[in-house]
Amino acid sequence: MSWKPNRSSHLTMQEQIIDWVKSRIDKGEWTVGTKLPPQRSLASQFNVNRSTVQLALDELKASGLLHTRAGSGVFVANNSWNILLNNNQPNWHRHIESGIHKPNYHTIQLINEYEQQEGIIRLGTGELSPDLLPTEQIKDSLSEIQLESRAIGYSSPLGNEKLRNVLCTYLKKRDIHTEPDNILIVSGALQALQLISFGLLEQGSVVFQEEPSYLNSIHPFQSSGMRVTSITKELKLKEILKEQKRNRQSLYYAVPTLHNPTGRNWTLEEKERLYDVCKELQIPIIEDDVYHELLFEETYPAMKSFDTSGQVLYLGSVSKTLSPGLRIGWVVAPTPVIHHLADIKMQTDYGSSAFSQEIVAHWISSGMYEEHVSKLRARLKERAAFTEAILEEQFKDTATWEKSEGGFYIWLRFNEPVVNKALFLNLINRKVLINPGYIYMPSDLHHIRLSYAYASLKDLKEALGILKELIS
Amino acid sequence: MSWKPNRSSHLTMQEQIIDWVKSRIDKGEWTVGTKLPPQRSLASQFNVNRSTVQLALDELKASGLLHTRAGSGVFVANNSWNILLNNNQPNWHRHIESGIHKPNYHTIQLINEYEQQEGIIRLGTGELSPDLLPTEQIKDSLSEIQLESRAIGYSSPLGNEKLRNVLCTYLKKRDIHTEPDNILIVSGALQALQLISFGLLEQGSVVFQEEPSYLNSIHPFQSSGMRVTSITKELKLKEILKEQKRNRQSLYYAVPTLHNPTGRNWTLEEKERLYDVCKELQIPIIEDDVYHELLFEETYPAMKSFDTSGQVLYLGSVSKTLSPGLRIGWVVAPTPVIHHLADIKMQTDYGSSAFSQEIVAHWISSGMYEEHVSKLRARLKERAAFTEAILEEQFKDTATWEKSEGGFYIWLRFNEPVVNKALFLNLINRKVLINPGYIYMPSDLHHIRLSYAYASLKDLKEALGILKELIS
Repeated sequence: MSWKPNRSSHLTMQEQIIDWVKSRIDKGEWTVGTKLPPQRSLASQFNVNRSTVQLALDELKASGLLHTRAGSGVFVANNSWNILLNNNQPNWHRHIESGIHKPNYHTIQLINEYEQQEGIIRLGTGELSPDLLPTEQIKDSLSEIQLESRAIGYSSPLGNEKLRNVLCTYLKKRDIHTEPDNILIVSGALQALQLISFGLLEQGSVVFQEEPSYLNSIHPFQSSGMRVTSITKELKLKEILKEQKRNRQSLYYAVPTLHNPTGRNWTLEEKERLYDVCKELQIPIIEDDVYHELLFEETYPAMKSFDTSGQVLYLGSVSKTLSPGLRIGWVVAPTPVIHHLADIKMQTDYGSSAFSQEIVAHWISSGMYEEHVSKLRARLKERAAFTEAILEEQFKDTATWEKSEGGFYIWLRFNEPVVNKALFLNLINRKVLINPGYIYMPSDLHHIRLSYAYASLKDLKEALGILKELIS
Repeated sequence: MSWKPNRSSHLTMQEQIIDWVKSRIDKGEWTVGTKLPPQRSLASQFNVNRSTVQLALDELKASGLLHTRAGSGVFVANNSWNILLNNNQPNWHRHIESGIHKPNYHTIQLINEYEQQEGIIRLGTGELSPDLLPTEQIKDSLSEIQLESRAIGYSSPLGNEKLRNVLCTYLKKRDIHTEPDNILIVSGALQALQLISFGLLEQGSVVFQEEPSYLNSIHPFQSSGMRVTSITKELKLKEILKEQKRNRQSLYYAVPTLHNPTGRNWTLEEKERLYDVCKELQIPIIEDDVYHELLFEETYPAMKSFDTSGQVLYLGSVSKTLSPGLRIGWVVAPTPVIHHLADIKMQTDYGSSAFSQEIVAHWISSGMYEEHVSKLRARLKERAAFTEAILEEQFKDTATWEKSEGGFYIWLRFNEPVVNKALFLNLINRKVLINPGYIYMPSDLHHIRLSYAYASLKDLKEALGILKELIS
């Protein structure tokens, strides 16, 4: 349980809070430089008035244990009393700074942080709203899961065999014909990118992408020392790829169906051209296909469906359709690649949750999955239409967008370059959280990735009203 | 479903198998250099005689599509027909070779591979036997899990809040007093090592360990470019650490309770001395405490219980006690460290399975976990005694060992240096899989990590008989 002051103690609330903060510093839980939670969170945790917290912190500041950095919060101070007390603490700050894996960008850290807060409207979240998740049905289905002792031990390197078999059948509907030993189960598509980055590229390799790109908002490749290069796929594709690649290892990251963040679909010609050029230049392609089940109308063929050279690494997942909490995705690739990635996965986390794998196998094989996805598509389509109607009403003069063909997003383009960090922060102050275009393309100050999948319709309307107000 | 020949086809079994192999090569699923599964696996998959498979493969070899490498198996050949067909396949072999993350050692790959095979007796496996897992109780408990829609969305960076609260209470029994924001939920302790390696060390940092060490059989630190240095903890600890560390980042990896692979417990003095020296030299300590619940008798205090400077990163897990398939562990560390590791975890896999986290929270908070662990301890103690009785009867003259104090292992030492790769392979031929000492300490040819936790008592007896026969 989180600590709370004891109301029947002989000490005042304020004194107890002071003692608690001191003990956390004393035990080394809050090291020098640690940022304290905001006063309002502490007040809510302690169930006291904010002024009580403030008085306690003031006293700690006066004694030199804490200090305030203007605009950024209250920190554990580096003063002599403190250093004396915590003689020889490891220099965690230096450790954190020197780690190979870099922290997320500040805007993204803020997004992660504010997404957890109550009362904020999430206008950009790439996640289904809680009321779109089949929580009750999943709960009911747990009693139907066949759990075997073998299955809840350590997983085989490629993942649950039943699930891989089920996926072979399922993927046939996407016109992908494969075998269980060409499938690796992963903990979501992001982990697949991480494994590919560590397993198939050397430092300094080139990762090609379109721009804007989801890859710019995460950095599985950048963190392991790859060069990520944005190219336009329209003109002189072959020449550009050839020139940029030179003799280095490389691969192309593509989201040809319901692209993140733009929501666009590549034409068949675009896919074939990229495939042919990459084949000629021996550049493997990652086809990130996690949104395809959410296409409102016709299905566009996956590049993997016409891959005869084994150069497409195909990624799927249930995070956008069934539940992100399951953490289940898959890679389809040539056998030697799959075995190598599986070997690295075993070294990383010894496989994905056996329970999650059983749940997904059950949902797909019983047909519950497709039935659910079909209903989900209809509801997302309604949400898209609702949102587009508001845009039509309120943003026709200031912005442009394309009608959504499926998935979660509308790539809203403002005529003026107004989508900067100040707007992002001002919206947070008004309890609205957006995904600004610049996290997908650093130079972009025109776009917002609007998600109609998460917020309630009421919240969507309210937040768009606030957005309009701040823009003008 | 895995492919099988069609018994009512107008083609013979053999012809169908040939066509299937050709189509897999044709589609790029089996690229040049891919090793085919063993004939016995194919025969079992196809439900045909092994001779049918052999005839089919012979024909494919004669046509130049496959070739045999003596002693290592059948491979997709690099011949002109094939190259013509798969014009410009990516050079996967080069990609795999150049990856940052290296493959596991060969012996360990073989262990991973043979562990999956039916009929093999696993004499070294660090895993509970299926009949020691509370599979039925877990299944029954699923109906009691409170699933909320929020909980099955993307996780908060530190992990399920309920579970972190439950762990705070649970850890008090280990005399570790902490708060939810000092706990990060991870997908098993191995992932914690990976996150620490990427998050808190720069390339070339020094990771100290005892030898033999579990770390030598996995390589989360080596793979990201750290220098792993084994030191004896007895003599001149401070001088050695100081000299080896110099100005580099460093940390010390310790398993002070039921050490893996030796099963030994550090004395309190050893722990205090290491803690004091590391504190003086500002070297953080990883305390891997995943076996402590399995101590047969008294509980030894964790280093974390007397850590007042926040320099101990404490690791726990349910993989050795409840189910490895859950993939749930935790790190206890100072707040800034936890937040940094959480940020990297979000970049790696967006959190651990929400379902697994709910199950663990339910088991620990309801008391079912401790009740189960208490029974488990008793059963492991019986297994240890049974195994020690066999050793006493059969190995008294050729080997020595210490009576197990808990956990899974007996660190069996042969008087002669007989535990080499040949013994490992000969035992595999007799369907017995061991974990030889050399995977924990390369120069060691004396030890076997004997696990009494996995094989049935009958199998244990039989396999020890075979071991005795091959040794003499």
